[in-house]
Amino acid sequence: MSKGLPKRSEDYSLWYNELVKRADLAENSAVRGCMVIKPYGYSIWEKMQAELDRMFKETGHTNAYFPLFIPKSYLSKEASHVEGFAKECAVVTHYRLKNAEDGSGVIVDPEAKLEEELIVRPTSETVIWSTYKNWIQSYRDLPLLVNQWANVVRWEMRTRLFLRTAEFLWQEGHTAHATREEAIQETEQMMNVYAQFAEEFMALPVVRGRKTENERFAGAEDTLCIEAMMQDGKALQAGTSHFLGQNFAKAFDVKFAAKDGKLDYVWGTSWGVSTRLMGALIMAHSDDNGLVLPPKLAPTQVVIVPIYRGEEEFKAISEKANEFATALRRVGVSVKFDDRDTHKPGWKFAEYELKGVPVRIAIGPRDLENGTVEIARRDTLTKETFELNSQPIEQKILDLLDDIQNTIYNKALHFREEHTTEVNSWDEFKEVLENKGGFIAAHWDGTGETEEKIKELTKATIRCIPINQKQEEGECVLTGKPSKGRVLFAKAY
Amino acid sequence: MSKGLPKRSEDYSLWYNELVKRADLAENSAVRGCMVIKPYGYSIWEKMQAELDRMFKETGHTNAYFPLFIPKSYLSKEASHVEGFAKECAVVTHYRLKNAEDGSGVIVDPEAKLEEELIVRPTSETVIWSTYKNWIQSYRDLPLLVNQWANVVRWEMRTRLFLRTAEFLWQEGHTAHATREEAIQETEQMMNVYAQFAEEFMALPVVRGRKTENERFAGAEDTLCIEAMMQDGKALQAGTSHFLGQNFAKAFDVKFAAKDGKLDYVWGTSWGVSTRLMGALIMAHSDDNGLVLPPKLAPTQVVIVPIYRGEEEFKAISEKANEFATALRRVGVSVKFDDRDTHKPGWKFAEYELKGVPVRIAIGPRDLENGTVEIARRDTLTKETFELNSQPIEQKILDLLDDIQNTIYNKALHFREEHTTEVNSWDEFKEVLENKGGFIAAHWDGTGETEEKIKELTKATIRCIPINQKQEEGECVLTGKPSKGRVLFAKAY
Repeated sequence: MSKGLPKRSEDYSLWYNELVKRADLAENSAVRGCMVIKPYGYSIWEKMQAELDRMFKETGHTNAYFPLFIPKSYLSKEASHVEGFAKECAVVTHYRLKNAEDGSGVIVDPEAKLEEELIVRPTSETVIWSTYKNWIQSYRDLPLLVNQWANVVRWEMRTRLFLRTAEFLWQEGHTAHATREEAIQETEQMMNVYAQFAEEFMALPVVRGRKTENERFAGAEDTLCIEAMMQDGKALQAGTSHFLGQNFAKAFDVKFAAKDGKLDYVWGTSWGVSTRLMGALIMAHSDDNGLVLPPKLAPTQVVIVPIYRGEEEFKAISEKANEFATALRRVGVSVKFDDRDTHKPGWKFAEYELKGVPVRIAIGPRDLENGTVEIARRDTLTKETFELNSQPIEQKILDLLDDIQNTIYNKALHFREEHTTEVNSWDEFKEVLENKGGFIAAHWDGTGETEEKIKELTKATIRCIPINQKQEEGECVLTGKPSKGRVLFAKAY
Repeated sequence: MSKGLPKRSEDYSLWYNELVKRADLAENSAVRGCMVIKPYGYSIWEKMQAELDRMFKETGHTNAYFPLFIPKSYLSKEASHVEGFAKECAVVTHYRLKNAEDGSGVIVDPEAKLEEELIVRPTSETVIWSTYKNWIQSYRDLPLLVNQWANVVRWEMRTRLFLRTAEFLWQEGHTAHATREEAIQETEQMMNVYAQFAEEFMALPVVRGRKTENERFAGAEDTLCIEAMMQDGKALQAGTSHFLGQNFAKAFDVKFAAKDGKLDYVWGTSWGVSTRLMGALIMAHSDDNGLVLPPKLAPTQVVIVPIYRGEEEFKAISEKANEFATALRRVGVSVKFDDRDTHKPGWKFAEYELKGVPVRIAIGPRDLENGTVEIARRDTLTKETFELNSQPIEQKILDLLDDIQNTIYNKALHFREEHTTEVNSWDEFKEVLENKGGFIAAHWDGTGETEEKIKELTKATIRCIPINQKQEEGECVLTGKPSKGRVLFAKAY
């Protein structure tokens, strides 16, 4: 292991970048803006995927797979949609390479030009709705509840590992319904699924809300979202769920015959979360020693480190360690017994702290004598001597993992509460944003102009209109015009 | 359900295409050569993925994710590699769209041209080895055992659903080793993992073998493969495992310090299977009534169909059906109770036959009286009346699923044996190929010229030199030159 990480208090951004690299989560690739997700980072993403996939299936969705490429004309069919994505589209124009005739190497064969350019999907509404046209004839074909796990590409100019990359991994749900109400219900349901996933598994409290018109998905009638707060007080949009109205059904002429035989356009939703969640997970909980992972998403929940001199001590300790590992695995805990003799215990302690393993058990010769082990928890960096005859170790560890999961969640919740401020004047708004950060709950006059103006002046955006917004008369913090409730402003990732 | 499928005996190719579409497995998309994998097809692929992923992890591999795009210069670094893939590369040249100034619509922005063109990965050796350069310094970093689940693009001119598509899904393992021997061992191990998966889960007997030099992967020193036989007697390459020697290590300058401090290039392997396996699965077992799925990969293993008149009968039958479903689920069987009143039993029978559900249980009022159910198996299309008091139904079904899995396998094995012919003359070769098809075991003089000539004359290729090839003196079936063992020829997908 190399020297310590940069400190969050000194350079939060550098701390994040270094942590992502040193904890073996991801790195930049040779292609601008595209990342390599390293095995350890990917194993966390796999755990997220597994839970989300289970939740999608439990709510009646099935997976499918649609093409990577979208004909340019398809993307253009929904006007505001193409408007929203045109500036960041990777375009395939040719389908062959050849050797240059002047011997200068391999070139794109100018004769192998596509008749119509293909866009590498930035999102799949258009290609999916063009398919749904053939899948949907009558109300019996509805609802159609499909999800896809895929890679998408948005040619971003400024990128950061996990948070904003030219290519990222995500899931995108695309559903079709017979009624407006049912589609709205689905939109809300999936926002709630995301919120539940964030809170229960990522230990990440989120605000459920609605985007303003300015911040809506290109092609949606309504965008719901979950917004989380990072330790630097900035907001991070962690998932969105869109009510598409009949926009894409109209663009792709997807109609269905109702029970009474009447033809109508289908109602749609789409919803997604991405590898951006990895960035949220890292930034919400980790500290200056490295990653802090919620036990429910940690690839390794417990590491056992032997402390010994000589073969004989090692043998006795290994026996005990293997016994614990077996007992823990039997109750579903993932355990690693790190018996490598190539690294010292101190090195291992630091390594697993950096990697965010929630619980460390250390066993030395004195522990064997005393019938104890040392148990350290990653989140609080505290240690205790555990008496093996006080209770079964597997119960001790299960309780501890639960406690860690809850503690991390509560800490993040407390932080968010501490960093959510109601302000009632423009001076106060600027002052809080500048000196404290976090969410600012303020009145807003409901216009896009004011929203835009505030963004220009402060870089703060309206993260959402909370679902549980209190009805409250007030005056817009910038214009003084009337408002009926507070919205959440913040600087955001 | 629409009318019957075309018959295999009349038009095998049409039968396959229609089956894929009617059983809701996949369909063509608006983008030439790119398919949509429909929910039912994808659920079978997910089962394959789950088993393969488990097998990869059990053999020490971890998953990671590498970029979709490969800089053109990277692809060119390994000479035979670029040679092999240049003719089918989708090329990204631009990164933005804009509105045409003449108002004609959305066009590719000519000013947003990439400095270096990007290739949509046809396979990831180059981008991965360029990354491995930074991951590998010493023998302690080896072996590096990484797999990736991803989409890849090869711009094929003639495509067929699952078998040959411009975009397909696959996994690609990429490993790095300190010694030649260890890399060869890995190459063999992964061929064996594929063979085990094919035989145990897909119920698909395969020949393990080695490709000839002509048929080797572009950039490999040796390509091992598993070859299966379809019901029309054509061969299908179901998986390949490549020993890369030090080719990619040299192209990307990946060296490691051995224990003695000596620097050497790393030894590599790569191996993959793709959604092509779906094609193999379908073509190996299915019949003129539809899909036949091996129970171990069937998304639904048992369907229960009630046969009733009126609400009262339905209630009594439903109670029984739900009791069975619960008992079966408890022992890990996936069951669907199709209680829809919108479709008649006969329609359902045909539908589940088409979809390849291995076991159908029908329950009618007389069954209730007699304490029986009707059990039908999909593979043999046979039915029996099962006495419920003869043994627990879950044991009956578990045994039946096992039996179906074995029967399907043995049927395919028998077919392959019947269609593997040793021939000793050129006339016999042509005669067998023409009239019987299948694998032809023949002597070959070992030259690429002869192999090429035979392909030109007959369209048959050398599928592989079997791993268990008998040492046997003989004369090349075309040239009469000496040979030391038979190789397998066939027409292939």
